[in-house]
Amino acid sequence: MGGFFTGRTLADIARSLRSGAETPAGLLAGALESVDPDLNAFVTVDPDGAAAAAERAGEELAAGYDRGPLHGVPVAVKDIIDVAGLPTGMGSAHFDGHVAEADALCVTMLRDAGAVIVGKTGTHEFAYGGTGDVSVNGPVRNPRDRERMPGGSSSGSAAAVAAGTVPLALGTDTGGSVRIPAAFCGIAGFKPPYGAIPTGGVFPLAVSFDHVGVMAATADDCRIAYRALTGPEEAVPSPAGGGAPHGGPRVAWIEPEGADPDVERAVRALFPDAPSERIDLTGIRAAFRAVQDAEAYDVHAERVAEAPNLYQPPTLRRLERAAGTPGWRYLRALREREAHERDVAELLDRYDVLALPTVPITAPKIGETEGPLGPHIQTVISLTCPWNLLGLPALSVPAGTVNGLPVGAQLVTRRGAESLLFDAAARLSSGA
Amino acid sequence: MGGFFTGRTLADIARSLRSGAETPAGLLAGALESVDPDLNAFVTVDPDGAAAAAERAGEELAAGYDRGPLHGVPVAVKDIIDVAGLPTGMGSAHFDGHVAEADALCVTMLRDAGAVIVGKTGTHEFAYGGTGDVSVNGPVRNPRDRERMPGGSSSGSAAAVAAGTVPLALGTDTGGSVRIPAAFCGIAGFKPPYGAIPTGGVFPLAVSFDHVGVMAATADDCRIAYRALTGPEEAVPSPAGGGAPHGGPRVAWIEPEGADPDVERAVRALFPDAPSERIDLTGIRAAFRAVQDAEAYDVHAERVAEAPNLYQPPTLRRLERAAGTPGWRYLRALREREAHERDVAELLDRYDVLALPTVPITAPKIGETEGPLGPHIQTVISLTCPWNLLGLPALSVPAGTVNGLPVGAQLVTRRGAESLLFDAAARLSSGA
Repeated sequence: MGGFFTGRTLADIARSLRSGAETPAGLLAGALESVDPDLNAFVTVDPDGAAAAAERAGEELAAGYDRGPLHGVPVAVKDIIDVAGLPTGMGSAHFDGHVAEADALCVTMLRDAGAVIVGKTGTHEFAYGGTGDVSVNGPVRNPRDRERMPGGSSSGSAAAVAAGTVPLALGTDTGGSVRIPAAFCGIAGFKPPYGAIPTGGVFPLAVSFDHVGVMAATADDCRIAYRALTGPEEAVPSPAGGGAPHGGPRVAWIEPEGADPDVERAVRALFPDAPSERIDLTGIRAAFRAVQDAEAYDVHAERVAEAPNLYQPPTLRRLERAAGTPGWRYLRALREREAHERDVAELLDRYDVLALPTVPITAPKIGETEGPLGPHIQTVISLTCPWNLLGLPALSVPAGTVNGLPVGAQLVTRRGAESLLFDAAARLSSGA
Repeated sequence: MGGFFTGRTLADIARSLRSGAETPAGLLAGALESVDPDLNAFVTVDPDGAAAAAERAGEELAAGYDRGPLHGVPVAVKDIIDVAGLPTGMGSAHFDGHVAEADALCVTMLRDAGAVIVGKTGTHEFAYGGTGDVSVNGPVRNPRDRERMPGGSSSGSAAAVAAGTVPLALGTDTGGSVRIPAAFCGIAGFKPPYGAIPTGGVFPLAVSFDHVGVMAATADDCRIAYRALTGPEEAVPSPAGGGAPHGGPRVAWIEPEGADPDVERAVRALFPDAPSERIDLTGIRAAFRAVQDAEAYDVHAERVAEAPNLYQPPTLRRLERAAGTPGWRYLRALREREAHERDVAELLDRYDVLALPTVPITAPKIGETEGPLGPHIQTVISLTCPWNLLGLPALSVPAGTVNGLPVGAQLVTRRGAESLLFDAAARLSSGA
């Protein structure tokens, strides 16, 4: 059971388009045919707009005007990101019928790279949750087990890629919303360093932590897409301390305190030589939460006052709790962030890459709100949100399965050293 | 009825010291003799330390080593400012018996200028209030009417200068705490632009708004002291639009909405030609309060949790209310500040100086908590706190009396244009 793009890489696709074996219009037709309504990954499909873009891409390629590896490639865009002329619903009744007037900056970047925007994908309401099952559009289903959550908030983007409907999707990540659904759905997801892809035209969740990220079947495809959007790779900083004995980057294992032991074991097995290190996960999460709460409520205060009933009940409850985060706690959390930044910077002086599970559990059943580790809404972000607080690049790559469900390995590095992440991921997938 | 320094200016004193007519030791003796315990202006007098400093200053001056206009001059320092070896009590039982280990930076600056530190002056508890009557040391009394509040929080510094005990005192000003007591006590008080005098070693109230300022009988003495501490005056920016017809700075009258009409009339009379302008005082005050609340509670959270009973009850009540200021309100207030900055900058493109009353009422009776304009604690800062939110230099100068009680005129200008304030004040006192 696979979609049109299952098993294909961006490199394959680019070759095929340039050889003339396939056309953008043909790829688009394949994508549209493999949209599976039962997954609920898409909230809007735009066959006409996509067809026009595919035709233009085909003409450009035929004329020898090559925009690079995304040229003519079907891409899905999360529904909190504005695409001019398409509904942008944020997964919320508050934006029922709302049509974006202009493209978000990241969409402009996609178009400049020649991508063909197939449609908009389902999001946890206002991206305010990592489970992906709370939306006016109903829950997105996990292609790997349709009874289970896809993770969120970029739920539909992950499901669309995992189902093989598109080879690439844009998501956003404020506490893990690209990486969590990537891990749950068995694909790769990359959150760049803070600010690397501009957030203009993206509905804000918490401005200090909001990132746009890319989601694809493999880490290498994430790399290709990220570079296509942001420009060529910088020179790779030489690995700390001259590199590990095997010549690759020096990797530290960050102890994922409290993670499901099976998940931890599966991911740890990929890094047998990495020494264990600890970071103050508890303090980091508390600081993250205080800042996210205050910033999220700032975005929603008027809506909560004027039309609370338009929210899904879990979202409203979260916002009401967020409203109570005191100002002194917020500003203290910003100070605490500086201390955590120093601690992690010290670790990243000694290591090139930090590794840990992306999520400490596998995908829960849709409708389940709590598990052995506590409320899912908190559990799912517990290992991803630190890298939002710190703004560091973080990549989730498939790391096998536990009880048949995908788990993700998360790799983190210094700002500007993103290529090390992708190199480390390549070594993992090659078994080096 | 006057103290030793009543009617004397820093310029007089400097001349007298340099002519040999007086010595620093003699000035100190005069200051110490005119400490009036009934006013409760001083919480600590340091005759020994001051005598040593006066002796040194005398020797230096005699040897021709001249540190400038504060050399040998007795000065009082507010009791939230650290002076090495002296008790620094913050007006609070929390710091009962606490002795500062090192000088605050502003005290180092005083000593470098040759000043003789006579002692520490009473403060509203933790500087968290503009009335000056809430302190473990009891209320400071207003030398102009001992049944009345001196204003705060730099209450003792104002009373010590107004009583003629010292010609100069340091205060701090977070919402008006230098200017309010200056106005209530009939002296001058200057809050420099934010950051102009460093706050290191000063107990924080709200870090975004905390300023160290100077208090003296006249604006000219404030100018001399400020320049002695911070260095020579910058070139004066030429008055906006080529200056007013009379050749002085162009002054706008800021409508002090809701001020006591007698106070408004008294101050307005000093600026008969100034056109009226309005600023969004309500919005500015709300933003000020949200930020001050959050930042103040951040400073006190542990003390409130561990020893609430050590606070004076009004201070504890204020802190408990401040704790509830939501994070989203705090960060919105910081954004609102930027908008207010733009509005006032636009006004300061058209005018050199903004004028308004320092406080919209005269000094209330000690023990009174509310008046026709509302709770005194809010009323007293209502015209001063805008310039803390915006970090602009603001000077309060004596502007006559209403019903026998002093009122202050407040002058505000652009950052870096402080000399225009002092020029404007000089024109006022000369009647030009």
